[in-house]
Amino acid sequence: MGLLNEFEQRNRVEIGDEMHRFAGELYPICRSITGDGTRQTLAMIQDRIPLETFEVATGTAVFDWIVPKEWNLRDAYIKGPDGKKVVDFQKCNLHVVNYSAPVRARMPLDTLKPHLFSIPEKPDWIPYRTSYYKEDWGFCLSHHQMLALQDGEYEVCIDSTLEDGHLSYGECYLPGQLSDEVLISCHICHPSLANDNLSGLAVAAFLAQFLVGRDLRYSYRFLFIPGTIGAITWLARNREAAGRVRHGMVLTCVGDNGGFHYKKSRQGNAEIDRAAAHILHHYCKSAEILEFSPYGYDERQYCSPGFNLPVGCLMRSVWGTFPEYHTSADNLNFIQPKQLMESLQVCTAILDILEGNRCYRNLNPYGEPQLGRRGLYRSTGGEAIESEINARLWVLNFSDGEHSLLDIAERSGQPFFAINQAAQTLCENHLLEVIPEEATRLEQSEGATYSGRQRSGSHSNS
Amino acid sequence: MGLLNEFEQRNRVEIGDEMHRFAGELYPICRSITGDGTRQTLAMIQDRIPLETFEVATGTAVFDWIVPKEWNLRDAYIKGPDGKKVVDFQKCNLHVVNYSAPVRARMPLDTLKPHLFSIPEKPDWIPYRTSYYKEDWGFCLSHHQMLALQDGEYEVCIDSTLEDGHLSYGECYLPGQLSDEVLISCHICHPSLANDNLSGLAVAAFLAQFLVGRDLRYSYRFLFIPGTIGAITWLARNREAAGRVRHGMVLTCVGDNGGFHYKKSRQGNAEIDRAAAHILHHYCKSAEILEFSPYGYDERQYCSPGFNLPVGCLMRSVWGTFPEYHTSADNLNFIQPKQLMESLQVCTAILDILEGNRCYRNLNPYGEPQLGRRGLYRSTGGEAIESEINARLWVLNFSDGEHSLLDIAERSGQPFFAINQAAQTLCENHLLEVIPEEATRLEQSEGATYSGRQRSGSHSNS
Amino acid sequence: MGLLNEFEQRNRVEIGDEMHRFAGELYPICRSITGDGTRQTLAMIQDRIPLETFEVATGTAVFDWIVPKEWNLRDAYIKGPDGKKVVDFQKCNLHVVNYSAPVRARMPLDTLKPHLFSIPEKPDWIPYRTSYYKEDWGFCLSHHQMLALQDGEYEVCIDSTLEDGHLSYGECYLPGQLSDEVLISCHICHPSLANDNLSGLAVAAFLAQFLVGRDLRYSYRFLFIPGTIGAITWLARNREAAGRVRHGMVLTCVGDNGGFHYKKSRQGNAEIDRAAAHILHHYCKSAEILEFSPYGYDERQYCSPGFNLPVGCLMRSVWGTFPEYHTSADNLNFIQPKQLMESLQVCTAILDILEGNRCYRNLNPYGEPQLGRRGLYRSTGGEAIESEINARLWVLNFSDGEHSLLDIAERSGQPFFAINQAAQTLCENHLLEVIPEEATRLEQSEGATYSGRQRSGSHSNS
Repeated sequence: MGLLNEFEQRNRVEIGDEMHRFAGELYPICRSITGDGTRQTLAMIQDRIPLETFEVATGTAVFDWIVPKEWNLRDAYIKGPDGKKVVDFQKCNLHVVNYSAPVRARMPLDTLKPHLFSIPEKPDWIPYRTSYYKEDWGFCLSHHQMLALQDGEYEVCIDSTLEDGHLSYGECYLPGQLSDEVLISCHICHPSLANDNLSGLAVAAFLAQFLVGRDLRYSYRFLFIPGTIGAITWLARNREAAGRVRHGMVLTCVGDNGGFHYKKSRQGNAEIDRAAAHILHHYCKSAEILEFSPYGYDERQYCSPGFNLPVGCLMRSVWGTFPEYHTSADNLNFIQPKQLMESLQVCTAILDILEGNRCYRNLNPYGEPQLGRRGLYRSTGGEAIESEINARLWVLNFSDGEHSLLDIAERSGQPFFAINQAAQTLCENHLLEVIPEEATRLEQSEGATYSGRQRSGSHSNS
Repeated sequence: MGLLNEFEQRNRVEIGDEMHRFAGELYPICRSITGDGTRQTLAMIQDRIPLETFEVATGTAVFDWIVPKEWNLRDAYIKGPDGKKVVDFQKCNLHVVNYSAPVRARMPLDTLKPHLFSIPEKPDWIPYRTSYYKEDWGFCLSHHQMLALQDGEYEVCIDSTLEDGHLSYGECYLPGQLSDEVLISCHICHPSLANDNLSGLAVAAFLAQFLVGRDLRYSYRFLFIPGTIGAITWLARNREAAGRVRHGMVLTCVGDNGGFHYKKSRQGNAEIDRAAAHILHHYCKSAEILEFSPYGYDERQYCSPGFNLPVGCLMRSVWGTFPEYHTSADNLNFIQPKQLMESLQVCTAILDILEGNRCYRNLNPYGEPQLGRRGLYRSTGGEAIESEINARLWVLNFSDGEHSLLDIAERSGQPFFAINQAAQTLCENHLLEVIPEEATRLEQSEGATYSGRQRSGSHSNS
Repeated sequence: MGLLNEFEQRNRVEIGDEMHRFAGELYPICRSITGDGTRQTLAMIQDRIPLETFEVATGTAVFDWIVPKEWNLRDAYIKGPDGKKVVDFQKCNLHVVNYSAPVRARMPLDTLKPHLFSIPEKPDWIPYRTSYYKEDWGFCLSHHQMLALQDGEYEVCIDSTLEDGHLSYGECYLPGQLSDEVLISCHICHPSLANDNLSGLAVAAFLAQFLVGRDLRYSYRFLFIPGTIGAITWLARNREAAGRVRHGMVLTCVGDNGGFHYKKSRQGNAEIDRAAAHILHHYCKSAEILEFSPYGYDERQYCSPGFNLPVGCLMRSVWGTFPEYHTSADNLNFIQPKQLMESLQVCTAILDILEGNRCYRNLNPYGEPQLGRRGLYRSTGGEAIESEINARLWVLNFSDGEHSLLDIAERSGQPFFAINQAAQTLCENHLLEVIPEEATRLEQSEGATYSGRQRSGSHSNS
């Protein structure tokens, strides 16, 4: 029984609720690209799935980058001329510009102002800002707060540490029959932002949980990493594993109620791109496929030209395009159990294709085999056939060793699920046989050859 | 002079009338996949064209199938409780489910009913049903007849035989300069149904008649066969000949007044596919090109993956999509002389392309040759040129050994006829020469290479 | 600094005025495919740019053609029955059918009429007609003049000579770093017709003038030649040079106020085709790209199958499609300084692409390089990036040795200019390096391979 089939037999309402609850537990933690918030987050994921965590020391060279200092924040506030707190980190961790250097000072409003950020168009919302690679400090506040600031002397406190320490990330590896891997990656560096990216984190964790203990064709690797520097660090330390990635997805913004978007990998026609497009086309209303561009989330790193991995990015609303993006309005109300569950289902359906997309061989390729005497055809001639029989004819006609089931699904316009079903029925009736995996790999289509080339390229570089 | 040109000089009204008359003569015969009806049909075709007939014994293995028993039907009826015939085979041969096993019995209406078929939505029409591969019996009747049946005991008689015998089919082979073949196939197994497929049968026979005695480039093979089992039987007995098929068409439903439809071969871009699309585009209003699918008529067998022959299917209305399909309303009024003639003309025009589609070589490839001094250009400069001269420029520019005349017609947007005309004029003026056939074959485009590969593949398997 | 950048810093109003003035000086000259008018025209071009002129003797065989006699015309007129001139060459050189044989005769109107040409629909305009390759004579006149002709005896005089002499053409060769050439060609055979082709001639001359003395990547060859026979003559005498042409354009009708049109080369996807399409798409309103056809101006000869050079044709209004075409209404008012200047700018922008379209290599292909620490990224995280940074990401991601800057511009949707700018910035920051020219050539894309094949093909034929 396929993954999708099994998933659909679960209590999906409950799964959605549970994912939302999990996001809610993670929401208050003050995360960043390094520090204890990230460690705490990884520990909470570890409660659910087998997760190995890694600590990479500050100063470690990773390609063109250096693992930065570890940042931890105990408290932060601005006190007004009257000594009352006008901005308080304890109320919302977005108030501090993420990765701010420590500061304790008194200053007039004019000196303070360049360190303050608000959104005039959304006066109730607090923006999210970072200053990772330029040492600085700052506060984010609502525009209402900003306007209420009176002239006078302010006391500023950011009780942070920015010291040598470690960058933390987690890996959940689930071995399958093949050493070839499917990579699922999500960034865990954002503090109290729900859609970006507690949604991705929750869906990835629950997807891993769903796969644990199953007999899988591919091996799966789930990465829970800080954005950009985390992906670069992982790639720098895992060039061999990167060379085994045959399909991959970055998950982000998968909890809001927008339609689905899949951004294609740099390869543009990789199997993952086709599988995602197939599922979005057949199962999702108003879904959209986006061309690759080198700006985005961690697919930027996986799709850098030295790796060129077949890794796309699955989203509901596209990051950066909805007003709540990178503000305090991206909160737990902005993501919903039903939407999280649908995203998990779409992921499962895509993996269902990857797992089942094999090449088969028609054992009676000369003319059609006589389906009727095997009970695989209608019995009274003269009427139309059902789509089930039609799927069998498609599979038989194109199982010539050159077409995979996904090829056949695409050409026939039928859902992969139906085509795969037909293939299994024909196998049971000895009319079809699967082509052994190794042979399949040698005869692969463009996308796979690409990743094949990639693989050896990576080896020689590691 | 080309085929199309010659055809257009015939009395086309008369040809249409004659085809319709021929269909009328064949209409009353009770045909099936085997039996005397088929033999009688072949004999009537033999009166018009040189046709070799074949008899293949019941029980012969043909790929995954077995040649079935021979079916013959003398009489059949249902008598009501009052002893009167309520259904009578003598009035319409569709009344008997085709290939029904013999039966002689008395039974109450309730027992009879599962053996009766009607069309509630079209209460005047008798449906056409078959039961080839599951031994059974039944009657088809109009829904008015069905409703009129009173409770009571009925007498049922199907005076058929279902015994070891033969499957019959006919071949008309017309040798040309090349051993490469054009295959025209039509099914002859349907009883009193005019569009499906007396129309295809008449057009095929008259097309063969038109070609007899001509100096042809290709060899032509016309098959008059029972559907499915006939095509499979022919393929199983003629793997070498199948390997010589370079182009082919199945003809069906070519007599009604719908617009033309051409269903592409599995190869999808074979020369026949392009030739048919070209003719339908240039000469037919509201014609449509359909993608290949493995469900349909005998192109299913020719396009099975072991053969993958470049065989498409030409229709006017698409089988299964018009209400008269497989009912008594598909009668001699449903097909018309004019429509039959147009279909014959379209076939001729397609063959005209196949016959004339050669590669030529421009003998003055450096700059344009001076057409003016050969009287092939306008004489006063400064004005636009005519389409005739334009066709010459296209042929000269693209006759580089890599483009066939059809390639040039497609790229220029001009009809093949005009491009071919230009090529002949340029040859007469020693500006162009045809590339010898063998060289052409070696330098062939994708479609042909495909069938080339196919050919050797078939040989090694036979 | 790129060509386009430099051009835009010129006084473009002045350049437009100067081009129009130049066209005005050339306008009165009676040109033809041979003769002193052409020589005088070349001499005036020689005043502006280094131009080598060539004289090819009458009777010289050039491929399928023979260099024709030299034509010179002193005077021509028709005198009416009353002895007054009713048509006078001195008033407009279009009055004489170009290349008319000498004639001195008296004849009645009826005998004269077959030699007279007018345009009934445009009764004020004089048509332009030629009779190059059939010895004949004639007059062109306005339809008003035609209607005013009374019965009676007319005196006809064409004081021309049609004798052995020479065909004249000019070449301006500007050597660059590569021996590979860019060809710019325009026909100079038309008499008083401004858009066709004093416009092309002026733009070509000013483009050459702009390039003189610059450090260029490609070598440039500007041809000022009579139409058809001139191109054929040049090709016949310069097969090696033709083999070095990597990009080329014919310039005609570039002075009117219509939108731009670029007709693609026979290759259809040559770099020049893509460069022209890119510029017209990004900078010109309502521009249109036309498919190649073998009818047109001298691209017909450059794109003949023996050469198949990547040479397109740049126009504003397409020749033959505007009513003024080949009439006296194609005069100096029909072309305007601003339009001529825009055409020159478009040519410059296209050459700017050709000069700058190199392949680069990302020196940090594994993950992204850290742009931030080099000041090439925004400093505060969380907000959108500017298009400048986006261009850098595109260049980095696709500079894998397989994509040229034009490839990247096309895929990203950004203008070539911005992509090239990003590449230069990245080179200065040691993040990118240009791939040496020779290597580039070996790894070339389809278009270039084509011309590479072409090149050797030509050699073996010369």
